[in-house]
Amino acid sequence: MNRRLNVVPFVDVDNMMKLVHAIGIERFLVGLAHVIEADFRRWPAFDKTARVASHSVDGVIELMPTSDGTLYGFKYVNGHPKNTRDGLQTVTAFGVLCDVLTGYPLLLSEMTILTALRTAATSALAARVLAPAGARTMAIIGNGAQAEFQALAFRALLGVDRLRLYDVDPAASEKTRRNLAGFGFGITICDSTQDAVMGAQIVTTVTADKQYATILTDNMVGSGIHINAIGGDCPGKTELHADILHRSAIFVEYAPQTRIEGEIQQLTLEHPVTELWEVLAGQAPGRRSASQITLFDSVGFAIEDFSALRYVRDSLVRYPMFSELDLLADPDEPRDLFGMLLRAEPSLA
Amino acid sequence: MNRRLNVVPFVDVDNMMKLVHAIGIERFLVGLAHVIEADFRRWPAFDKTARVASHSVDGVIELMPTSDGTLYGFKYVNGHPKNTRDGLQTVTAFGVLCDVLTGYPLLLSEMTILTALRTAATSALAARVLAPAGARTMAIIGNGAQAEFQALAFRALLGVDRLRLYDVDPAASEKTRRNLAGFGFGITICDSTQDAVMGAQIVTTVTADKQYATILTDNMVGSGIHINAIGGDCPGKTELHADILHRSAIFVEYAPQTRIEGEIQQLTLEHPVTELWEVLAGQAPGRRSASQITLFDSVGFAIEDFSALRYVRDSLVRYPMFSELDLLADPDEPRDLFGMLLRAEPSLA
Repeated sequence: MNRRLNVVPFVDVDNMMKLVHAIGIERFLVGLAHVIEADFRRWPAFDKTARVASHSVDGVIELMPTSDGTLYGFKYVNGHPKNTRDGLQTVTAFGVLCDVLTGYPLLLSEMTILTALRTAATSALAARVLAPAGARTMAIIGNGAQAEFQALAFRALLGVDRLRLYDVDPAASEKTRRNLAGFGFGITICDSTQDAVMGAQIVTTVTADKQYATILTDNMVGSGIHINAIGGDCPGKTELHADILHRSAIFVEYAPQTRIEGEIQQLTLEHPVTELWEVLAGQAPGRRSASQITLFDSVGFAIEDFSALRYVRDSLVRYPMFSELDLLADPDEPRDLFGMLLRAEPSLA
Repeated sequence: MNRRLNVVPFVDVDNMMKLVHAIGIERFLVGLAHVIEADFRRWPAFDKTARVASHSVDGVIELMPTSDGTLYGFKYVNGHPKNTRDGLQTVTAFGVLCDVLTGYPLLLSEMTILTALRTAATSALAARVLAPAGARTMAIIGNGAQAEFQALAFRALLGVDRLRLYDVDPAASEKTRRNLAGFGFGITICDSTQDAVMGAQIVTTVTADKQYATILTDNMVGSGIHINAIGGDCPGKTELHADILHRSAIFVEYAPQTRIEGEIQQLTLEHPVTELWEVLAGQAPGRRSASQITLFDSVGFAIEDFSALRYVRDSLVRYPMFSELDLLADPDEPRDLFGMLLRAEPSLA
């Protein structure tokens, strides 16, 4: 796919949407979850570092690199909660996959849409080993850009087909209902979080405020629930009351990062947590009983993005939804970079 | 320049070469040095971290981020010395400049050529405050991809017009002479490093072996010389005998990074060094006497790349050598990312 060395396949936003539709949204989510699971199972093979964050007053810009020794990937992602006021996305992202052997990029891809898909796929993957058996009803607290992706991933991977929606802005819930109209969910729009969690076996919290918020309080959480907490994902941004954490079995992606960014920043560093990969690799149990409260404290980790880039790259073989970027200087003689520049002078052309 | 929010200006290799020729190579180097100098003078305003490196058997892949609080930039760069055997570049790079206020990318650019230019501009900038007055003769040890850029930057910024070239491969020196034929240098190709340094006031070492090498030994270095050491730039890769370091006043970009990657990895952590920005900002002296040996132990730092991206972005206003990438998802309603995806379904188009 990449014979001309200077050319890097590029999946722009338009091609990413075409790729998702060519594969099918739910099939894409299932395929992506499969690759994430495979990569989580070989977790020790990866270079892992907490993301490299640059914080400012209005948000954060992060680089999330990882490598399995054969491929290297990184994602650029920002988080700017106030952006929506100006008609901008809260989160935008793009990523690059590279060949470790040569250091040459193999793929550049938009990752705003891809991040939404991989976040949902990871949530559903976790719920498959953590949610109570036969769960079909999910509450979604926060009906922003991530809500529909969560709904479809849980449907595709777990068979969830009843949704209870709540957002501080009723228009957001309406938007979510409208977008999901053709997918066969039973959808109830609720007046409050308390109302939304009634009868739900899974509670997904995915709000966007950058502050210590208490979206779920202790009294709302009954036994046997699985909580899929997506929105608390940076220092100072949490969604759950600490009392809930003390009653829950807590599962995380990468503990050193989640202790800084996740719900568990409210707990001591000694509080026991289980990394999801351990469950997927059969090294730790997931849900232990029907009455247990399980919590997936998700902040997003670089390996999920690596898996997503890998899935996209593999998919391009069958669905060639990409263009080509002349990103790399490729002189005929590697030491002759200057000669290449010199010969490109317009008067010599 | 960037009114459509989803579109990011992209300078590919072809446009970078056009931009360099439109401005003129030497004028580009001078303009770039000017921006680097301006940024070095406001050094304390920047977020500084050592680069984020992923080492493998054959090379290294690095991310180099920095921010001044208004703009954020990062570069992806690899270093794979064995690549040339397979007809690949040892170093390839690209970079992104972003708006800190929104987290949105403002520019994506190739940086293989741009890195060669900024490395040379930084070397010449350092030499302007460190080389002996009136220096006109430079030895270049290692005549690979960086050699001509160094030569032109030293000519443009210092008036160097006599070159003494040496490379273990005579064909590399011939290539350098051929490429520089039209620029009015007096060029001598030498049989050895010892021969090359004879009569030179400036010695540039820019070899590419990834190992502890001794390109310059102590007996080759006379008083009053300025050494511009470019090639030693990662752990285990040095070019100078330690005795030279002990006789020299040593200048570096960012000490915490250079102590790991530069020539000074051979010294104790207490050995005194001066950061170049201190000299440029008038906070520390450069060369103190005609007999002093000065050494610029250059490894490349993120702020230089930031400056280079800034220079390119500013230049695009007058010289619009860029294309536009649909890199960012930009739904009409920011919370409706899924709706944008849904409406892109081909059957609905």
